[in-house]
Amino acid sequence: MNIMVLNCGSSSIKYQLFNMSESSVMAKGVVEKIGLKGAFLKHEKNDGQKVRFEGDILDHQGGIEYVLGVLISKKHGCINSLNEIEAAGHRVTHGGEKFTKSVLIDDEVKSDIKRVSELAPLHNPHNLKGILAMESLLPNIPQVAVFDTAFHQTMPAKAFMYATPYALYNKYGVRRYGFHGTSYRFVADKACKIANTNIKEQKIVACHLGNGASITAIDKGKSVDTSMGLTPVEGLIMGSRTGDLDLGALLFLMEKEEIGIETARTLINKHSGMLGITGVSSDMREIEMASDEGNERAKLGLDMYCYRIKKYIGAYAAAMGGIDMLVFTGGIGENADTIRKGISEDMSFLGIELDEEKNKGLRGEDAIISKNNSKVKIMVVPTNEEYIIANDTINIING
Amino acid sequence: MNIMVLNCGSSSIKYQLFNMSESSVMAKGVVEKIGLKGAFLKHEKNDGQKVRFEGDILDHQGGIEYVLGVLISKKHGCINSLNEIEAAGHRVTHGGEKFTKSVLIDDEVKSDIKRVSELAPLHNPHNLKGILAMESLLPNIPQVAVFDTAFHQTMPAKAFMYATPYALYNKYGVRRYGFHGTSYRFVADKACKIANTNIKEQKIVACHLGNGASITAIDKGKSVDTSMGLTPVEGLIMGSRTGDLDLGALLFLMEKEEIGIETARTLINKHSGMLGITGVSSDMREIEMASDEGNERAKLGLDMYCYRIKKYIGAYAAAMGGIDMLVFTGGIGENADTIRKGISEDMSFLGIELDEEKNKGLRGEDAIISKNNSKVKIMVVPTNEEYIIANDTINIING
Repeated sequence: MNIMVLNCGSSSIKYQLFNMSESSVMAKGVVEKIGLKGAFLKHEKNDGQKVRFEGDILDHQGGIEYVLGVLISKKHGCINSLNEIEAAGHRVTHGGEKFTKSVLIDDEVKSDIKRVSELAPLHNPHNLKGILAMESLLPNIPQVAVFDTAFHQTMPAKAFMYATPYALYNKYGVRRYGFHGTSYRFVADKACKIANTNIKEQKIVACHLGNGASITAIDKGKSVDTSMGLTPVEGLIMGSRTGDLDLGALLFLMEKEEIGIETARTLINKHSGMLGITGVSSDMREIEMASDEGNERAKLGLDMYCYRIKKYIGAYAAAMGGIDMLVFTGGIGENADTIRKGISEDMSFLGIELDEEKNKGLRGEDAIISKNNSKVKIMVVPTNEEYIIANDTINIING
Repeated sequence: MNIMVLNCGSSSIKYQLFNMSESSVMAKGVVEKIGLKGAFLKHEKNDGQKVRFEGDILDHQGGIEYVLGVLISKKHGCINSLNEIEAAGHRVTHGGEKFTKSVLIDDEVKSDIKRVSELAPLHNPHNLKGILAMESLLPNIPQVAVFDTAFHQTMPAKAFMYATPYALYNKYGVRRYGFHGTSYRFVADKACKIANTNIKEQKIVACHLGNGASITAIDKGKSVDTSMGLTPVEGLIMGSRTGDLDLGALLFLMEKEEIGIETARTLINKHSGMLGITGVSSDMREIEMASDEGNERAKLGLDMYCYRIKKYIGAYAAAMGGIDMLVFTGGIGENADTIRKGISEDMSFLGIELDEEKNKGLRGEDAIISKNNSKVKIMVVPTNEEYIIANDTINIING
């Protein structure tokens, strides 16, 4: 059974075509600069062969049509006809309080995704465009929506409510939702399988550290707290996002710099975080290089980055009354051994004991990197959100 | 030696006259509604006799003049002449990065306090008014400034820097400063004395829980992290302040509610926190009563209040690599046994074991309330910031 997985942004579409009978990826790629000058499609077959096409791609439907054409092309394709695509799974950023799990898309779901767009104006409208485009291009296949927020809907009220007037929660749904939920579901399950433990008996702190970054407390398999909030800006220091910051400091800066809401949003999302502190880059590899060369602000940024995560690990241990597993995933979590080391240091009071040999140089593979006698298992588990989306899709259409 | 301690707000002056030879308070009181209709002075002598005066009090100088008149009055006073006041100590809210300890006030100090007013526009200008008024009324006595921020100036950069563009730190001094420093100095010292431990060997988490509330990690006697930031709105949930909140949520609310910076400031400082969640009150006693009567939002508020503090305790244990003492102070910390219980529950993974019998009903007195075998000593230590101000004053003028 072949499942098309789509992740549609404002001007990009990421796609993977899964053969779920063989649990393999037949092809994947990305369409970039949709509606802009210089639009292109990068396509990769499962034999590693890559190809790049340029051309006018006016909208999401045009982008997906382009992709489908490549998939069935003699030269670059991997299927003979579009009939071989049996379902589509869509990543949808925000499911509000309505969606606690993945769902088959119907008219009501589409209108709910649209309604929730108010909470994720930069994401949900584009996710929806992808859904409508697929519907129009392949009207006979079922489509499934998989929400970034759904996994976190198990959080208790004490964790998801903000201390703003209650009326604003009723009026707008202002509360913590959290993101990266699909990733957390995947890595928590997989970590327990690798460690041969029962997820129902584990207190897990999982760190999804990519350009966006968050951390989640998973107690007995359920998310009980997470660092991203109503929006993805809350929590950890990210590539270019502040993470947690005094609200008073934001208002102070808006006043002094005479900036409005939109510029403030750009400031805290695009010009802050590791980029803002270091002045070097939002890319962790470049920051580490600068730090190795003696750049003091790069060093400070790395210190702050790890320190913020250490504090969250302590906080989430307190939220769960302890911690059994610490899981790293995301581009930085999977690859940056020095960051994992910086986070794990001086945490033996919680039973966290990194095995520096196992950690060193480990990149992008499943591994237990704690000492054998460490009370807390420290693990690296590369995430695979697309696989979860494909898997949810097949489970839902198979009933 | 008699020391006058002053804490001047926008329309109020709190004062205490200390006899430091006897470590006693000779008189204390408060002037309220300065410059407003219905201004009054409430004065209390050390025999508990209270008196209230009403009358026009146009400015801080008028208020202090009124107080001095009462202090030397035959009927309500406690000294024969103003010559018996040998020095004055002032609480000053914000010392910026300049003031790491209390200082003798001279022209340079006054201009520095004024300069830092940008960071604390609601406090520093009024603190300065008090200083100038005393100077004009009692020009021959030395005056000392004691800063709420000074104790926290030992924080490492990884704890005090925000992940905003570094240039904004250079331009405005935007960083974490923290407040309640005088209180933390007092209770950390006193807790170690009571527990007969050496502060240089202790990892202390101290919670100052009043209408404003904060929490501090004190390692070897030095503040290494604290929850209030550039402004007092960051950190714990307070009577009417949000504490930590997604910056994106604030911008979302500003956009939806069409409010500007000043109204946003009022929203997060005056209409949020326990008041905002519960809709009952900003007063913890009233919230606890409502919760006891079954009010669900009051219960939620109390859950959130304790949960936030638990997470900070875990975070600060991570910041220090462990925790030896947990100290409660401030009106709520000193008096609310159910809050102390809610915070201490399910924290045995850190070695925190409350003795419910010792805790129950304990109000406003020094006590160790952990079980005898608790790894972490849990303590109640009523704060006394005025005493520290008087003591710093005498130490500085005695060289």
